[in-house]
Amino acid sequence: MKAEIIAVGSELLTPDSSDTNSLYLTHKLNEAGCEVHLKTIVGDDQKDIEDILRQALERSELIIFSGGLGPTMDDRTRSATASALDRPLVPDLEILEDLRTKFASRGFNMTPNNERQAEVIRGAEILENRLGTAPGMWIEEANRYIVLLPGPPRELKSVFEHHVLPRILKLGRETRLETRSFYITGITESELDTQLAPLYTEYPRIKTTILAGTKHISVRLYCWTQRGSGGEDLDELAGRIQERIGNAIFSTQNESMEEVIGRMLRESRNTLAVAESCTAGMLGMHITRVPGSSDYFMGGIQCYSDAAKTELCDVPADLILSHGAVSAEVAEALATGVRKKLHASIGLSITGIAGPGGGSPEKPVGLVYIGVSDGVRTLNRHRIMPGDRESIRERTTYLALSWLRRFLMSKDQ
Amino acid sequence: MKAEIIAVGSELLTPDSSDTNSLYLTHKLNEAGCEVHLKTIVGDDQKDIEDILRQALERSELIIFSGGLGPTMDDRTRSATASALDRPLVPDLEILEDLRTKFASRGFNMTPNNERQAEVIRGAEILENRLGTAPGMWIEEANRYIVLLPGPPRELKSVFEHHVLPRILKLGRETRLETRSFYITGITESELDTQLAPLYTEYPRIKTTILAGTKHISVRLYCWTQRGSGGEDLDELAGRIQERIGNAIFSTQNESMEEVIGRMLRESRNTLAVAESCTAGMLGMHITRVPGSSDYFMGGIQCYSDAAKTELCDVPADLILSHGAVSAEVAEALATGVRKKLHASIGLSITGIAGPGGGSPEKPVGLVYIGVSDGVRTLNRHRIMPGDRESIRERTTYLALSWLRRFLMSKDQ
Repeated sequence: MKAEIIAVGSELLTPDSSDTNSLYLTHKLNEAGCEVHLKTIVGDDQKDIEDILRQALERSELIIFSGGLGPTMDDRTRSATASALDRPLVPDLEILEDLRTKFASRGFNMTPNNERQAEVIRGAEILENRLGTAPGMWIEEANRYIVLLPGPPRELKSVFEHHVLPRILKLGRETRLETRSFYITGITESELDTQLAPLYTEYPRIKTTILAGTKHISVRLYCWTQRGSGGEDLDELAGRIQERIGNAIFSTQNESMEEVIGRMLRESRNTLAVAESCTAGMLGMHITRVPGSSDYFMGGIQCYSDAAKTELCDVPADLILSHGAVSAEVAEALATGVRKKLHASIGLSITGIAGPGGGSPEKPVGLVYIGVSDGVRTLNRHRIMPGDRESIRERTTYLALSWLRRFLMSKDQ
Repeated sequence: MKAEIIAVGSELLTPDSSDTNSLYLTHKLNEAGCEVHLKTIVGDDQKDIEDILRQALERSELIIFSGGLGPTMDDRTRSATASALDRPLVPDLEILEDLRTKFASRGFNMTPNNERQAEVIRGAEILENRLGTAPGMWIEEANRYIVLLPGPPRELKSVFEHHVLPRILKLGRETRLETRSFYITGITESELDTQLAPLYTEYPRIKTTILAGTKHISVRLYCWTQRGSGGEDLDELAGRIQERIGNAIFSTQNESMEEVIGRMLRESRNTLAVAESCTAGMLGMHITRVPGSSDYFMGGIQCYSDAAKTELCDVPADLILSHGAVSAEVAEALATGVRKKLHASIGLSITGIAGPGGGSPEKPVGLVYIGVSDGVRTLNRHRIMPGDRESIRERTTYLALSWLRRFLMSKDQ
């Protein structure tokens, strides 16, 4: 099925802002067998939106709008769609009631402009938005499907997954995009490509992308298959890749590193505490993104100052004096100290120089030490991270998680 | 001048790839007085490209293509443009010669498919591409300007700067885009619009966008002004907005909340420590995004377990027993406790239920308490946050920063 995406919002036409929703939508649509052949980004202009929709109806079966459904005057998607389809907008009392309840539960009065969000294009099916106020809509018109989704990414994803995807799948198209994906750490992008290119070039029907991010490298294999058949070559290539790079792959299920770590800690009945100097909470924040992480995460200390390191993590003051706060010795002492302080079975620590100031020829910006201890083994590793302050902190956080994974794997053996 | 951008390339319609050229082009075009009112991303499909160009000619004065000028069969921008404009493609012997020289200088033989790059749309001006093989083109047609640029970002920038920008400036448009922006917290998007709509609707020449994010609401005012004059109404509206919503505006300089807080702490010679239960590091992580934050940030405690609250933040165990870990009393005790433990002048705390589990009728998912103490005053506030786990945590983190700002403001008085 030929699909197109129309992102609405003048802010998307400024130099600072790009439309990220469409990447998510493209991914999901491809999986569901829809080929995205066009994307348009249009401002909050009633006439432009109307014109684009009229053109889209000529060329695409499935048309997905994101954004422009809010309460303010410049939210025009509803009215432009109604006008292009020549259907009236009618107030929906149930949505209105629901909006009032949502506002009341948060202790706010609902201002009259919010009533716009309860206006429905006649004949549209309402798609409930659990995470926000503006509901989505599903409209059928002369063998075309028009979908209106809210712009905030979380709301868009929630409405799409719960209400749009099932409807698309029910349309029962015969081809689908099959994908296999791997998340990888501990190897560079070019090293990885050198290892994988001889494999994937043998399969010209399969599209392979290697994309390096801050968190990990992802390798994706795509190919279009007929429903109920095909995909054997995809499995074959995926198997050969897994054989070739083994342990560097930490996930094949789109499972995040935090989730992998959480599963391993839970299965091995370990608990974790963290001591964070330069990351100051980023590690704990990521670990606790996983619901139920309180089962294995005891807490942590943001030991930003030296006093916090000595007083709260029991790092001997003379260790900091003789080796510096950014050192292998202090990383290990932080890991053992925080482990005991928080009654965890494993302590994990980060100390480093995130910059832009604070570097020296011996200890440059980007130098980070990671410590880990289970009371028996205490280890440390270091790296010099590239990039700016935020990128150094993110890379270090993910490296700490990656090394914790290896540490947990080696405990098993 | 109304401009639109058409990015050509099937790779731009995959889930992993976004069109970054258009951000650069938007920035440069805005500076040159052109408003980008539409962007399209289209695959390597001759008919789609032709149709989009025909529509673009109806609505825009300046149409900029990026990509699709290469040597391969799937590079269709040249032929689609020629066809939509009903002009022939003619081989240009000079370009052909230049291509042969470029290949020879790198020790390659030129393969025949490269000759496509020497085909010129009749009447087009050639735009030299010093960094690559495919030249750009500048075409005038019935008061419309059509520009073809190569897709690789370095080549696109080079051709644009050297050959396109001077031509646009010579068209002698006298306008430029002026903007004013505000970051706002402590008020809902709809409440804000109710307050501002009576003001901004008085200035139809100025475009106002209100955009709610997790961190804050941003209000942007845009208007086109004559070079060397104008913008008085923009300043007037900006002034009236500032008067109307005053303290809710925390920044007019694109300064983040973390930076505002940092500046206030530094100027008032205060230091800060945080105790985070459900956010488990997110608050500390945000505060330390600001370089030099070690001047005022002493550190924090991720008191995820009750033991961490009592042992590390000195919260009396019976306070947790009688009121629960998510309570006004515990929030205040965390703020006073962490303040002392980390020798800070101000303690800031968060305790809440991020979900999806752990809620009850009395204490639902989303209930959060924030505590703040400077040793003299100890305050707490609570909210029920909407959204999923991650959204509750982010909103709470930004609410804590927003309340800290108010607390610091009230200290001054």
